[in-house]
Amino acid sequence: MNTMATGEQVMGELMGADYLERRKEQRNGFNDVLQDYSAEVCFGRVWARPALDRKLRSVINIAMLVALNRPNQLRNHLDGALNNGCSVDEIQEILLQTAVYCGLPAAGDGFRVAEELFRERGLVG
Amino acid sequence: MNTMATGEQVMGELMGADYLERRKEQRNGFNDVLQDYSAEVCFGRVWARPALDRKLRSVINIAMLVALNRPNQLRNHLDGALNNGCSVDEIQEILLQTAVYCGLPAAGDGFRVAEELFRERGLVG
Amino acid sequence: MNTMATGEQVMGELMGADYLERRKEQRNGFNDVLQDYSAEVCFGRVWARPALDRKLRSVINIAMLVALNRPNQLRNHLDGALNNGCSVDEIQEILLQTAVYCGLPAAGDGFRVAEELFRERGLVG
Amino acid sequence: MNTMATGEQVMGELMGADYLERRKEQRNGFNDVLQDYSAEVCFGRVWARPALDRKLRSVINIAMLVALNRPNQLRNHLDGALNNGCSVDEIQEILLQTAVYCGLPAAGDGFRVAEELFRERGLVG
Amino acid sequence: MNTMATGEQVMGELMGADYLERRKEQRNGFNDVLQDYSAEVCFGRVWARPALDRKLRSVINIAMLVALNRPNQLRNHLDGALNNGCSVDEIQEILLQTAVYCGLPAAGDGFRVAEELFRERGLVG
Amino acid sequence: MNTMATGEQVMGELMGADYLERRKEQRNGFNDVLQDYSAEVCFGRVWARPALDRKLRSVINIAMLVALNRPNQLRNHLDGALNNGCSVDEIQEILLQTAVYCGLPAAGDGFRVAEELFRERGLVG
Repeated sequence: MNTMATGEQVMGELMGADYLERRKEQRNGFNDVLQDYSAEVCFGRVWARPALDRKLRSVINIAMLVALNRPNQLRNHLDGALNNGCSVDEIQEILLQTAVYCGLPAAGDGFRVAEELFRERGLVG
Repeated sequence: MNTMATGEQVMGELMGADYLERRKEQRNGFNDVLQDYSAEVCFGRVWARPALDRKLRSVINIAMLVALNRPNQLRNHLDGALNNGCSVDEIQEILLQTAVYCGLPAAGDGFRVAEELFRERGLVG
Repeated sequence: MNTMATGEQVMGELMGADYLERRKEQRNGFNDVLQDYSAEVCFGRVWARPALDRKLRSVINIAMLVALNRPNQLRNHLDGALNNGCSVDEIQEILLQTAVYCGLPAAGDGFRVAEELFRERGLVG
Repeated sequence: MNTMATGEQVMGELMGADYLERRKEQRNGFNDVLQDYSAEVCFGRVWARPALDRKLRSVINIAMLVALNRPNQLRNHLDGALNNGCSVDEIQEILLQTAVYCGLPAAGDGFRVAEELFRERGLVG
Repeated sequence: MNTMATGEQVMGELMGADYLERRKEQRNGFNDVLQDYSAEVCFGRVWARPALDRKLRSVINIAMLVALNRPNQLRNHLDGALNNGCSVDEIQEILLQTAVYCGLPAAGDGFRVAEELFRERGLVG
Repeated sequence: MNTMATGEQVMGELMGADYLERRKEQRNGFNDVLQDYSAEVCFGRVWARPALDRKLRSVINIAMLVALNRPNQLRNHLDGALNNGCSVDEIQEILLQTAVYCGLPAAGDGFRVAEELFRERGLVG
């Protein structure tokens, strides 16, 4: 299987079939280069490597995306983290740790994004 | 008085009783760890120290939050800054200084956040 | 011609007459210092210099604004870039290059901002 | 045991007795407030929580410190990561993942810091 | 007096005559544009404004430069802050506050830069 | 030719044969994954694309690397920029533009890195 196909499979396992479907519908002559880069480089070339398990990769991403101040992708990867086995309690704890290293405002934005997602998925009251 | 109680008192003096009330209503089993961290560490352990006056702490926060690109907390702390004695003219001047050091786009976002808040509070035309 | 007048002329050539008009309408006693700083320093003092052509300055800005995580100004300068001769294909390629150096989340946000603008201008399907 | 004492114990377990010793020798009337903040807040209040195991906290820190561009603390925490069970191969893999999300320059600096440390500890050729 | 001359005077009052002297010696056909930008825009156009006192401008700069991760300029402005009336205790307190908002690694780097400078000036033991 | 070989060829054209040689000597079982990522993804997959000319790619990189605060790679790419046709005057102008958008401290660090390199190459007095 080539890198692109591998990447799409990994992405589907992480983000779900719906995510892949929406992606296909949104594909056009402008964003296609980024979709290909994401499938091949990010998922096919890095996430597909067996050296770290998927749950750990999700944890790493949550930490980086809070530090990088990228709420859109944070939300996607929080969703992915739940899909591959992170619990709400673990995510709470990771986000608390970001408060110490990235600062309270970064953690505050991270909690807000997570809480919104968890409410939609019925995971917080 | 313990650190948590001190922190809540300082937060109330800075942000107002309404802010504390909304905070309590929003508290749940997910965000409680961040609320406690904020009350104890941020307000009880740092803001409560008498070594800098509150107005100066607000000025420092405005500068950092523009640099850190965190508009949600910038808005809260601009509100707090007005509450503890910063004038609109001083805030204008702090934000102008961010243009030199953080760059014009950072200052532009800071002015936008401030202007929106000041309009709601009837402070700009 | 003084720096301020030069700056306003350059800004008008880049962003269009409508942009200048909206700017004037929004001017008030709070944001005037930033408007003046922008006209004089940014456009009158730097953009007006003939040492780089305008299209190249737009390319540089797109790269910086993705890296700096400033979507509001990125949108303005993508608009400006189209006005002074960047093609959609060139912008696509610049944004792809940001994926390598600024990371995929930064590029993803950049593509999203660009795609929204290009759709409004009828440039992507 | 109070938070400060807990924090110092956790810090010692992570960084080793030598680190604690150097810290004590360097303590003075200027840096004492930061040392106390670090012991109490970072290690006593967050790292001491049992909700995540120590190795996972190290992984999260490596990811954040690459993203935050803080090589001094990255080095300390890479050292700590080895102490609580991360392998060189796992660290290699975490750093590779930062290339995708934080960009190649961030990953390049991370690899450089890690390689220097690993060479001192006799872990790379 | 024109903006350039005003800026050089303000810079001299803040940084001292030695700093201005070194600056002149280092001036060449490459860095001259930045020296002029700094004198005119930063010091002549912003620092020269009477709307904030100089000490407060130094405080704002310390906060921003920690957040922006720029140790070279942080050192210069810590030096300037001492020159226009900030005490070591006030700087300690500002840096402690950065730990909460910018994160502990940012504050740690800030304390290190400050401690090195203060030791050279005989201000810490 | 495969992506890896293409990437190494592009890298050699940009950075010179010496750079490739040093790279090979430094390769080991730890940094090999990053070297491969850099060759394949960065140079083979993005720089090799004909849609932008190489000089423009260098300009984009200088802008991003100043914004991202990565002096090590900035130096490499300033070197590369000279190799593929950027003049000292153009680099001076790009760096001046970063002062407006990334802030004066970022530009100051950029000028310092460039000046050091240009002096080694005999390009500034």
